[in-house]
Amino acid sequence: MRTTLRDVAELAGVSPKTVSNVVNGYLHVRAETRTRVEEAIATLNYRPNLSARSLRRGRTGVIALAVPELDVPYFAELARHLVAAADRHGWTVLVDQTEGVRERERQVIGGFRDQLIDGLILSPLALTVADLAERTDSTPMVLLGERVHHGPADHVLIDNVAAGRDATAHLLGLGRTRISAIGAQTAAAGVTARVRLRGYREALAQAGVPFDERLVAATPRFHRADGAQAMAELLDGPTRPDAVFCFNDLLALGALRTLADRGVRVPDDIAVIGFDDIEDGRYSVPTLSTISPDKRQIADLSVDLLDQQLRVGAAGRADAEHGPQEVFAAYRLVERESTLGR
Amino acid sequence: MRTTLRDVAELAGVSPKTVSNVVNGYLHVRAETRTRVEEAIATLNYRPNLSARSLRRGRTGVIALAVPELDVPYFAELARHLVAAADRHGWTVLVDQTEGVRERERQVIGGFRDQLIDGLILSPLALTVADLAERTDSTPMVLLGERVHHGPADHVLIDNVAAGRDATAHLLGLGRTRISAIGAQTAAAGVTARVRLRGYREALAQAGVPFDERLVAATPRFHRADGAQAMAELLDGPTRPDAVFCFNDLLALGALRTLADRGVRVPDDIAVIGFDDIEDGRYSVPTLSTISPDKRQIADLSVDLLDQQLRVGAAGRADAEHGPQEVFAAYRLVERESTLGR
Repeated sequence: MRTTLRDVAELAGVSPKTVSNVVNGYLHVRAETRTRVEEAIATLNYRPNLSARSLRRGRTGVIALAVPELDVPYFAELARHLVAAADRHGWTVLVDQTEGVRERERQVIGGFRDQLIDGLILSPLALTVADLAERTDSTPMVLLGERVHHGPADHVLIDNVAAGRDATAHLLGLGRTRISAIGAQTAAAGVTARVRLRGYREALAQAGVPFDERLVAATPRFHRADGAQAMAELLDGPTRPDAVFCFNDLLALGALRTLADRGVRVPDDIAVIGFDDIEDGRYSVPTLSTISPDKRQIADLSVDLLDQQLRVGAAGRADAEHGPQEVFAAYRLVERESTLGR
Repeated sequence: MRTTLRDVAELAGVSPKTVSNVVNGYLHVRAETRTRVEEAIATLNYRPNLSARSLRRGRTGVIALAVPELDVPYFAELARHLVAAADRHGWTVLVDQTEGVRERERQVIGGFRDQLIDGLILSPLALTVADLAERTDSTPMVLLGERVHHGPADHVLIDNVAAGRDATAHLLGLGRTRISAIGAQTAAAGVTARVRLRGYREALAQAGVPFDERLVAATPRFHRADGAQAMAELLDGPTRPDAVFCFNDLLALGALRTLADRGVRVPDDIAVIGFDDIEDGRYSVPTLSTISPDKRQIADLSVDLLDQQLRVGAAGRADAEHGPQEVFAAYRLVERESTLGR
């Protein structure tokens, strides 16, 4: 007779649910319990029938996270939070890299691998609202970030205008008046940069500080190298800034490196603030002030929205009844050495 | 009549192969060509029949990369190289996080999602040779790293003993004699730490410098926080080191932060070298000397081994004829400010 999950539970002295949790690789099982269940599985030579289970549910238990770049720490940290949030629903997360290329993003939303996944969380860079409107695939999907604001899909974001305003106001509050912005972008993909720049301009206006275009540095991307180069150009420019708001932490870490090379004191001569609160900035010298989006909340909200869509689908309700939701996650200003000193 | 790929090629004035490349989202197509093909696709309302294609090949075109932690920069950077290498074969890479938990790693090798993927690249932390020997799933697989050396699977690694020796010899060459090692591990999973420690000891022995256990700091993990704490404990210990070999760059970045907090000059008072050559260390203050594994080569070798296995499978040859291969990738010593000064 074939060994059942119940047999394993009995031998291990745990509930069938616990055996199921171990078999599914859920991480919240205590190590000692896990060992006991594994020993029982080995003793009875139990083989869980995973594919039958998937078929019964009509699901694979796998969701995809598609991001532009895997090695950008913000996305890597967000991915970790999403893996944890998905684990609470018993889902495995597979991560896909789009490079921000529109055709790849279109494929992702087009059901490119609809037989593989139950749901999709996508952080688009190039996708248009029209691309989304044309979508016929019905795989549950949640979008992250600013790119397709007010589009026809559930959407999780933070208030980037307010956050940009807060970062700039923090620098103004230190008495700085020649505040640079690094990370402006002219490309269509630069929606995030545009809203952060709007916040920067609003804060300047509120403080009565005139906007000076020469203090705004455009960058092709949001990498350390871009920040290092933009900072060098600003130092060589006509108006030397006394503070810099970088539109992400990588740009700020690049800027800090250039300032160290030039012997500029931070924050005494130039105060620096970033955006994202990646771990690097908690260990850099000096540590980096930043805007910290609540990544855990972004992950939880995204997974919850996906779960809602799956439930709606399961209940057979019409999609039309369930309009797209736009949910804001929290953020906070984190003040560290790069603006406050030691 | 249904629009075919050939119709699109004709309208766009390109070869059917180029249309196929665009449809598959391969990244080596020139932007201008891509646009022309996309316009032709839109004009003709062409819908590629992806699932039929997958069925014909009997493949999904998807390979999985399973790593312990997505937000460890070494794995994130390796993932990016693997995505590029896989793209040259027309494969999409999905990344899976195991947390280094043995049961999750066992599932990954056990064909947990064998219907989803054509091949698997796994960087294990907890998996045993016995786990591998028991494997019945036949999905092509390549292992990375030191964990299951000489196991029954294709395997890509670098010579960690030699690399550990080179890192230590570099510090000895600066005239340092009280050289600490940070990152020793006692857990079974600490195979990488053990081989790097062996290299450290060999270099000391070759230089006639006695091994001093009090200079070796064990850490629970390889994160920045571990390096920061270990460095603090060494500074408070009986023998103050004049150099530190950290078993990865994150540990070294944590150590640098502690040294800055304590006002210790790097490299004047203490020289620091890491391991991995992650981008963070090229922008830190000071920049970080390190061992740089050739991540691009590791990625290329892994994908090539997977491709070989797929071809062997396709040709119907017996697996037995194709013994497991162990392939070494290159590494080099990179000397920066944390050992050489500015």
